[in-house]
Amino acid sequence: MAVFLDEVFPQVRGMFGIDRLDEELLVMRLFAHERHLRPGGTVSGPAMFSLADVSAYVATMARIGREALAVTTNCSIDFMRKPVAGQDVLAECRVLKLGRALSVCDVLLFSEGQAAPVARANLTYSLPPAKG
Amino acid sequence: MAVFLDEVFPQVRGMFGIDRLDEELLVMRLFAHERHLRPGGTVSGPAMFSLADVSAYVATMARIGREALAVTTNCSIDFMRKPVAGQDVLAECRVLKLGRALSVCDVLLFSEGQAAPVARANLTYSLPPAKG
Amino acid sequence: MAVFLDEVFPQVRGMFGIDRLDEELLVMRLFAHERHLRPGGTVSGPAMFSLADVSAYVATMARIGREALAVTTNCSIDFMRKPVAGQDVLAECRVLKLGRALSVCDVLLFSEGQAAPVARANLTYSLPPAKG
Amino acid sequence: MAVFLDEVFPQVRGMFGIDRLDEELLVMRLFAHERHLRPGGTVSGPAMFSLADVSAYVATMARIGREALAVTTNCSIDFMRKPVAGQDVLAECRVLKLGRALSVCDVLLFSEGQAAPVARANLTYSLPPAKG
Repeated sequence: MAVFLDEVFPQVRGMFGIDRLDEELLVMRLFAHERHLRPGGTVSGPAMFSLADVSAYVATMARIGREALAVTTNCSIDFMRKPVAGQDVLAECRVLKLGRALSVCDVLLFSEGQAAPVARANLTYSLPPAKG
Repeated sequence: MAVFLDEVFPQVRGMFGIDRLDEELLVMRLFAHERHLRPGGTVSGPAMFSLADVSAYVATMARIGREALAVTTNCSIDFMRKPVAGQDVLAECRVLKLGRALSVCDVLLFSEGQAAPVARANLTYSLPPAKG
Repeated sequence: MAVFLDEVFPQVRGMFGIDRLDEELLVMRLFAHERHLRPGGTVSGPAMFSLADVSAYVATMARIGREALAVTTNCSIDFMRKPVAGQDVLAECRVLKLGRALSVCDVLLFSEGQAAPVARANLTYSLPPAKG
Repeated sequence: MAVFLDEVFPQVRGMFGIDRLDEELLVMRLFAHERHLRPGGTVSGPAMFSLADVSAYVATMARIGREALAVTTNCSIDFMRKPVAGQDVLAECRVLKLGRALSVCDVLLFSEGQAAPVARANLTYSLPPAKG
């Protein structure tokens, strides 16, 4: 799956990993590298947004094929708790709808080892028709 | 639970019902009455918004007590499929965070008897300090 | 314009009016009728959602033609202040994007005569290709 | 104003600038540096999210004082057009509500020199009471 991620999203190599990918659920991991951190050592809001965004992208591409196009059109994200310093953040992503024109995903984000989510997000990807 | 609902939300009497209310999940029901319907017989978007809103309100009040105050501050809702005409709509509501100042809830909406959700919503309620 | 509104949205006759409709701005009005009110006399959240939704619909239809199809796919709404009791609520709606597949609108809601907005919303309409 | 930005948000030094800051409007700038870019040379979604987030933060802090606390609780963002490659992105941020507990801001994002916005966002910051 690391190969898949590198192919569809080469620019994030080393930043994210895939723990699980099947029909029901995608679990992705944001490695708690230093450059995503705020001074206090916590994973930043933009880094959590990136994790939610890439999760929805990967979950969508895994279903429609990696030759397809998918562009984020909307994201609403709630930040609910401070992530645990130094811990990876895990994203549980579910595809709620995969239509011809739109994909809608739900994402819950957790600091590894914690039961209460640090954030939740919903994302819509537009799926333009393939060229040619 | 009908008594509880009538007390906390008297103006919606006859519009909504509670199927389940416990620590893990609240399930509420929008009765497919005629006045919520569009010409085609489908439950309208505003009616689904109302169901999501009242679900998050009830789930929050059930935890903080019915004397407390709770005011909707934000809702993001995705409409994904057309509801089945003439069917009640069910809301599955989970409280993701209950803090001192804010409550954050996730809601999935289904036409009764269908596996694929018709809509999803997230809502934030502000919890002002009690007066006096 | 009342004729236009009745044609594209017959089920809301008597609930909404159009104050202005041109290239730059649509201004719609929610009449402060009793049935939209909560016990305290304030316009309800679902009524404000309805006003935002119908505004985005009318602004979109005015550009693409009333034979076209448009379906709400997403709305995010912030409730910021309590509306003034007994006052109409006005919506200022701007079309930010009108693409082939999606329309994106921004809406500010005001109690008539007040400078500070009571709510804001953004809505996305999906524009399915016409049949036949 | 560069001094102000460095003080309230030291970790983004060199990434953002402030073009205008007054009662009505904040205009911030995301420098089109290479590391925010996708392979095609376009500013990435997460970089636009960061710009919207920091704009709302700066607009809020400019009003409540830089000793105060402000934490992002919600952001809804619509991506509408592809940014122009190599151009800075400008954010126009307005504070719609500044209450005791919450700040609500609206942000429009533009590629410099373009009239049509590339994205829009609304953000809510929670304003916890100061300690001590």
